[in-house]
Amino acid sequence: MEQEFSSVLLENAVSSLSRLPGVGRKTALRFALHLLRREECEAVGIGEAIINLRKGIRYCSVCHNISEETVCPICSSPKRRRSLVCVVENVRDVMSIEATGRYDGVYHVLGGLISPIDGLGPDSLEIASLIDRIKEGGIDEIILATGATVEADTTDFYIYRLIRRSGSDVKVTQLARGVAVGNEIEYTDEATLARSLVDRTPFTV
Amino acid sequence: MEQEFSSVLLENAVSSLSRLPGVGRKTALRFALHLLRREECEAVGIGEAIINLRKGIRYCSVCHNISEETVCPICSSPKRRRSLVCVVENVRDVMSIEATGRYDGVYHVLGGLISPIDGLGPDSLEIASLIDRIKEGGIDEIILATGATVEADTTDFYIYRLIRRSGSDVKVTQLARGVAVGNEIEYTDEATLARSLVDRTPFTV
Repeated sequence: MEQEFSSVLLENAVSSLSRLPGVGRKTALRFALHLLRREECEAVGIGEAIINLRKGIRYCSVCHNISEETVCPICSSPKRRRSLVCVVENVRDVMSIEATGRYDGVYHVLGGLISPIDGLGPDSLEIASLIDRIKEGGIDEIILATGATVEADTTDFYIYRLIRRSGSDVKVTQLARGVAVGNEIEYTDEATLARSLVDRTPFTV
Repeated sequence: MEQEFSSVLLENAVSSLSRLPGVGRKTALRFALHLLRREECEAVGIGEAIINLRKGIRYCSVCHNISEETVCPICSSPKRRRSLVCVVENVRDVMSIEATGRYDGVYHVLGGLISPIDGLGPDSLEIASLIDRIKEGGIDEIILATGATVEADTTDFYIYRLIRRSGSDVKVTQLARGVAVGNEIEYTDEATLARSLVDRTPFTV
């Protein structure tokens, strides 16, 4: 739907807002008209927050997580085990794992997964810096927590090979795969079910 | 879900973006991380488009539609009948009616409907300016196209009373109500069906 608006400003705002993920021109127009109805300071505040975010954002020099300082709070915390590194795809994954409250190691954010279709090769990811971290020593275990997709498997395999080729014998693990908590057997796919049978664990009360 | 982000900039962006209609903190975070992945100029462009829209927008002095000039293209067009005024709630309604391509009159944008629950009284709407337009003369017909909700009915009734009280005998009409094109009788509500029976029109081929 290529609608033409009477106002250039409105047209610009709608085409800009429709670049957000999952936002079409109809929703973008709804956003724009909403912004027009609100106080000027509120609308301007949203615009400025976007600009400040993009211009001011910094990444941790160690794990590449979003951070205000050179080294992020997780990497610099004395409570975290620096010998345990969890490799994740992006910043959201860090948040998800932090939300569990069950992880006391540090992270390494790849910034994506190897995906030739999207033109994402190993060089556009933070893989070399991970190998450097391992070479520096002090790491006992690398947890590959990239997910259970084809891209994740590819990336995991690539990283694993690089680690071994670098001569490091660090322990490499991955997240357990199996029936999701709350799920019924009937609706669990065959691959997951097969995996959960092979990797069955002792029953505990 | 009150999540705390490690970055103040990210926190600001997420709380700002979640003020958009229908956007929660999860979607706002998705927007923010998307903006971080894109080129800086694109993200900054979105922010600037919002600020420019809110700061630069002007309204037509006649019909209160969004306009770059003092008088909007519709009001100043020699092809439009200035004697026919369609009263609508907001700018989106103007776009919807324009999209039909079947209307050659002008508009009057109220900027909302009377809704005591939302604290919207007649004074916060462009009702007085509509009465002034009618008093100035040259208008033959006012079409009340505010919708078929309780707020729309209230607003229509209020406007109608004001017009008559002002001494004007201008023709006042409203949009036809009936079965929507494409709808089945079975799924049409009783009120609409009753109305469509009373207002039945001659069958034409």
